[in-house]
Amino acid sequence: MKIVIIGGVAGGASAAARARRLSEDSEIVIIERGEAPSFANCGLPYYVGGEIQSRDKLLVAPIERLHGRYRLDVRVRSEVTKIDRANKTVDVKDLRDGTTYQESYDKLIVSTGAAPFRPDLDGIDHPRVMELRDLKDADAMHAAAIGQSGKAVVVGAGFIGIEVAENLVRRGWGVTVVELGDQILPPWDKEMVNGLHDHLRGHGVTLQLNDSADRFQDRDGGVTVHLKSGGSIDASFVVLAIGVRPESRLAADAGIECGPRGGIVTNAQMQTNDPDVYAVGDVAQVTDVVTGLPTQIPLAGPANRQGRIAADHIFGRASTFRGTQGTAVVGVFDRTAAMTGQSEKLLKRAGTPYQKIYVHPTDHAGYYPGAQGMTLKLLFDPDSGLVLGAQAVGGAGVDKRIDVIATAIQAGWTVEDLEEVELCYAPQYGHAKDPVNMAGFVASGVVRGDHPVVHVESIADAMPVEEFRIDVRTPGEFAKGHLPDAVNVPLEELRDRLDEIPRDRRVVTYCQVGLRGYMASRILMQRGFDVKNLSGGYKTWVQHHGEQVPVA
Amino acid sequence: MKIVIIGGVAGGASAAARARRLSEDSEIVIIERGEAPSFANCGLPYYVGGEIQSRDKLLVAPIERLHGRYRLDVRVRSEVTKIDRANKTVDVKDLRDGTTYQESYDKLIVSTGAAPFRPDLDGIDHPRVMELRDLKDADAMHAAAIGQSGKAVVVGAGFIGIEVAENLVRRGWGVTVVELGDQILPPWDKEMVNGLHDHLRGHGVTLQLNDSADRFQDRDGGVTVHLKSGGSIDASFVVLAIGVRPESRLAADAGIECGPRGGIVTNAQMQTNDPDVYAVGDVAQVTDVVTGLPTQIPLAGPANRQGRIAADHIFGRASTFRGTQGTAVVGVFDRTAAMTGQSEKLLKRAGTPYQKIYVHPTDHAGYYPGAQGMTLKLLFDPDSGLVLGAQAVGGAGVDKRIDVIATAIQAGWTVEDLEEVELCYAPQYGHAKDPVNMAGFVASGVVRGDHPVVHVESIADAMPVEEFRIDVRTPGEFAKGHLPDAVNVPLEELRDRLDEIPRDRRVVTYCQVGLRGYMASRILMQRGFDVKNLSGGYKTWVQHHGEQVPVA
Repeated sequence: MKIVIIGGVAGGASAAARARRLSEDSEIVIIERGEAPSFANCGLPYYVGGEIQSRDKLLVAPIERLHGRYRLDVRVRSEVTKIDRANKTVDVKDLRDGTTYQESYDKLIVSTGAAPFRPDLDGIDHPRVMELRDLKDADAMHAAAIGQSGKAVVVGAGFIGIEVAENLVRRGWGVTVVELGDQILPPWDKEMVNGLHDHLRGHGVTLQLNDSADRFQDRDGGVTVHLKSGGSIDASFVVLAIGVRPESRLAADAGIECGPRGGIVTNAQMQTNDPDVYAVGDVAQVTDVVTGLPTQIPLAGPANRQGRIAADHIFGRASTFRGTQGTAVVGVFDRTAAMTGQSEKLLKRAGTPYQKIYVHPTDHAGYYPGAQGMTLKLLFDPDSGLVLGAQAVGGAGVDKRIDVIATAIQAGWTVEDLEEVELCYAPQYGHAKDPVNMAGFVASGVVRGDHPVVHVESIADAMPVEEFRIDVRTPGEFAKGHLPDAVNVPLEELRDRLDEIPRDRRVVTYCQVGLRGYMASRILMQRGFDVKNLSGGYKTWVQHHGEQVPVA
Repeated sequence: MKIVIIGGVAGGASAAARARRLSEDSEIVIIERGEAPSFANCGLPYYVGGEIQSRDKLLVAPIERLHGRYRLDVRVRSEVTKIDRANKTVDVKDLRDGTTYQESYDKLIVSTGAAPFRPDLDGIDHPRVMELRDLKDADAMHAAAIGQSGKAVVVGAGFIGIEVAENLVRRGWGVTVVELGDQILPPWDKEMVNGLHDHLRGHGVTLQLNDSADRFQDRDGGVTVHLKSGGSIDASFVVLAIGVRPESRLAADAGIECGPRGGIVTNAQMQTNDPDVYAVGDVAQVTDVVTGLPTQIPLAGPANRQGRIAADHIFGRASTFRGTQGTAVVGVFDRTAAMTGQSEKLLKRAGTPYQKIYVHPTDHAGYYPGAQGMTLKLLFDPDSGLVLGAQAVGGAGVDKRIDVIATAIQAGWTVEDLEEVELCYAPQYGHAKDPVNMAGFVASGVVRGDHPVVHVESIADAMPVEEFRIDVRTPGEFAKGHLPDAVNVPLEELRDRLDEIPRDRRVVTYCQVGLRGYMASRILMQRGFDVKNLSGGYKTWVQHHGEQVPVA
């Protein structure tokens, strides 16, 4: 058996190692365009920023090890220029001397990844308009960033854009992030990342939202970025981070089927329409665990598993790729944003029925020092309670809760299951009622009809005449800011002041985070009022309105 | 509806709050023996140690709030002395003035908790032989510990014993922990906590294992602890932490059925044999999620959920308690030990077939600074791969992995499911192949027969003649210590040195943590050798042997 793997990072490297463990006799050839296989691509921004000091650390599996331990035939600086499926060969170009040769295969694994998108803009080929995909890019950016400072522009506020921005700030650079959308981190729902906008600004990052680069102009010592909005920024260099596109051209040219977003279509064993050709990693189209629909999510974890599964299938093992659910985490200075499953915007776009709740717990018991806050949003089916997605933003413990909910999603759990999950508790680690349990409690109450909620989107800046808003916090909390036209009736007084509440209006209760508002809604519901609690309370309202909190 | 709740902490407080949310019209009476309901009992050791500085922080739900928000009738310093089920009344003794009165109930919830076990030893009633169950105990210990120092003895090395020991060290005390068993933290398997023994000693704690207190003798300014082993320790005070017993006498005297370990028998709605009497929290016997058998595990999380479920059932809701799986975490200075499900010793005791594996990953990518090591042990059914339990000990990220596996256990997952779970990954948070995935990969290989493993227990100190041990690490690693009689053949050389390996002996391969040993076993297996890999490698071997690592 001879296996040729195009691309030796993540999925390709995993496939090779797994294939060797399953077969000592196979010939396994990795053809890698860059200078090194299996480098730590997720670490590149942190090498640029100096958090990772030694470049050697990025080489997680050096060629010598791949050869010594796995007897892999790794050919770096070599590019496959053509796949000939009829003859089962690939044309390989040696990038060092330009020579080309043919290599035959029994099984071919395409792991060519995804390339940063470069829009067709004037000046985009300027040498100071950089991207960050591989070691070569990292070296160039490292050289541009180290020992100097000035202004840099990052175009795109996705994962890589934000990570690069943070790391350039760490190097002392003034950074402007230009983003077409009205928020950073597009996979998250906007209200979840609004707070991170201020957080980035607090660390010196300039956010240029709702804008984009229009053209790049050479200037002495750098490049001028002309913005669609009309302004311009003089920068020493620019980092393009506006998303990636599957690098599937090579496969498509050979008649391998690709999806509408360019990813190679595969079955659950990672086979393409040619049973001798597999595709793994960012170049492959995958199935979304929640929706069951094709999607394109570039993530290292699934890439590694896919490589393993392709190798398994080649050697007759019955492994199955279950799909991708978009579990992701990103650090934003000392904050963390993590998510799994569907976002609200995706559910809305697809027309999928959903309900949502917000909770604002701390990572561990409030009475133990050092507790850090987070906001956790849970999306679920309004009838069955099936968990559809979750997002969390905050300090410590954010990734832990999303990992638990990611597991729950793959298990096909409902919000009721989240109520019952038994998690680690000691006061420095969590809560007797963990944030995941709390989210489960609140969501289950909503599903069961015990806890009707209203969301910020339905709360108009000016209160309609048929509505009555009750702020059940203390007068002190109320004085610091409240919903427009709300009346302050502290929870403790509510039972004695029922006559102040009109019975012919729909009542909205709220507190700071949702818990007292819920109790208030239970009191009023049982007294026959038409009442809903504002999910997530005033805190969610502020997060939702972001910078433009209406004056109460 | 009138509900009387005996005991206002954790389960009792949760039941009361839930009952009020479901019913504004009910009369809800909490009868609490101590001075405050709903205090943070898990925080008491940290108040003693000064980590939690303000005593007020321990009062998580003060009486005023329980009254103001929930209209609960909370009677502190009041003890129920008798339950009269025929007349549905309880006798209540006011501990302040000694008067007694009757209180009627429609539904009674027993949440009396569990009391520290006090063995019948000479001198055990000495005022300096303390325990740490409630605020009164915490006050006494706080007063004894603060502003002084000297020697303290902690009897029992369970959760509370270890937490108290750490906190007394934090106050500058010299602490000896006396433990009957040969390890601290009895729920964990010994090899998992061996490393913590040295860790505790490194922080100045004296461990007196395989020993127990025989009697306590008054001495000037304290108490002398006479040990079964014959020695004695002069201490300023002693903390008894040798486990707890359900405080079920009151219920048992009223004819409420109790189990063999003293816990009140309940159904999944927390009802006792009297349908109008519920039991929740540490006083209730529970069902083990993994074994389906009755058990007694005092944990705050399940207590809170049980309280909620009892209230739900009283008001006609169909909540069900799914049982307890023993998910727990404890801090040991800057290390963490966490577990969920069955331990190996429990499986062995029950005669349940099981297999196990060890991995030693870091919490996040090794190329990103600050990665901390952990050891993760996974227990599973040898045929189906059903996950039976997991334990982890190490630095950061230990609780996260156990939480994910706890979720997996409740979902009825196999080790194959752990391979596929999609968790958060960025280099500062985890791995593209998370420790949970890694454990799943290794365990699945074992279940599928691709990865035959041998365990340290089967490795005799002197190598039997029919065995051949190959250390596939580097000569440098080998020189620092290795298995007795092992031959060093670095993995990179193995394929070229096959003729050195006898074909008529059973071969054991190993490396530092198990990964290279696995590759070596794959090479040899495919060449027809009878080979097994030592799970967890040399590191597990060292952990297993603890202080007495045999000289190689």
